[in-house]
Amino acid sequence: MAGYTGTREDHLRRLRRVEGQIRGLQRMVEEDKYCIDILTQVSAANRALQAFALELLEEHMAHCVAEAIAKGGNEADVKIKEASDAVARLVRT
Amino acid sequence: MAGYTGTREDHLRRLRRVEGQIRGLQRMVEEDKYCIDILTQVSAANRALQAFALELLEEHMAHCVAEAIAKGGNEADVKIKEASDAVARLVRT
Amino acid sequence: MAGYTGTREDHLRRLRRVEGQIRGLQRMVEEDKYCIDILTQVSAANRALQAFALELLEEHMAHCVAEAIAKGGNEADVKIKEASDAVARLVRT
Amino acid sequence: MAGYTGTREDHLRRLRRVEGQIRGLQRMVEEDKYCIDILTQVSAANRALQAFALELLEEHMAHCVAEAIAKGGNEADVKIKEASDAVARLVRT
Repeated sequence: MAGYTGTREDHLRRLRRVEGQIRGLQRMVEEDKYCIDILTQVSAANRALQAFALELLEEHMAHCVAEAIAKGGNEADVKIKEASDAVARLVRT
Repeated sequence: MAGYTGTREDHLRRLRRVEGQIRGLQRMVEEDKYCIDILTQVSAANRALQAFALELLEEHMAHCVAEAIAKGGNEADVKIKEASDAVARLVRT
Repeated sequence: MAGYTGTREDHLRRLRRVEGQIRGLQRMVEEDKYCIDILTQVSAANRALQAFALELLEEHMAHCVAEAIAKGGNEADVKIKEASDAVARLVRT
Repeated sequence: MAGYTGTREDHLRRLRRVEGQIRGLQRMVEEDKYCIDILTQVSAANRALQAFALELLEEHMAHCVAEAIAKGGNEADVKIKEASDAVARLVRT
């Protein structure tokens, strides 16, 4: 599906940017950069990962969870529990 | 609905416990307790609030969001977006 | 110490405001308010608690930890480890 | 300083592991893995980054901040404020 490919490309772009941030962190450590500047960069990478996770979660609810609910039955409960557990893990990290 | 009343009582019990933790924090500050012990207590209150929020969110998805999706139409999208935004606020605090 | 009393009053004011937020949450649950609005209020209370914790931590580092370091010896290491552990607990909740 | 080099190697090892996790996430997206499994992996990468940040912060307090305090003067206040601000950024992400 074209729309979905677009989203996947978008996700990959985001993750490549995070990878770049992690490599940047390695360089900062190698070059003995000031700790506080390294910590600022860690916060930026964490925020980028969270933004990716929140986007993925919203898509998941709008597609997988919504489809399961539309079909009805036990699968819907399973999907909702699964999504709630994923939210709990995100909130706790 | 009996089940819902049960849940509401459960929520109120949790929130009263958090209120007790906040009053405990006030006493600790008044009695000049050691900062580190106060911070430990703040973390406990934050965790209790988060547990309440996660429970509420799961119920919300299992009831309100699921109902809107089952009915279909625009309302479902609104509910999913709303729940995703609430998750984003929780993750960021 | 006058300055310290000022800070304590400030802390108590903040905590009383959080207590008010928690009571507000109880009212919202009793009045069956919309889940999403309750969750928004939980995020606000969590942020207020975090702001209190960060202020307390900064004061603790500026006073207790700094004094221990100025005196030198083993006590300084203990205080730094203790503060780091408190930060870890805050970050993880 | 030998001890410091050890710590730097340790930091780099941790960051390379995080880089591996981010690449693993890219593969999961490319292979259309299940969203919930991707989210679990994001939580793991976030936790690894946080553990790195907390370690770095503890070392920073034990060395840079402690040295500034031992020397005394205005520099100590600057370092404490700086470390507190870094903690606030970590807590908020």
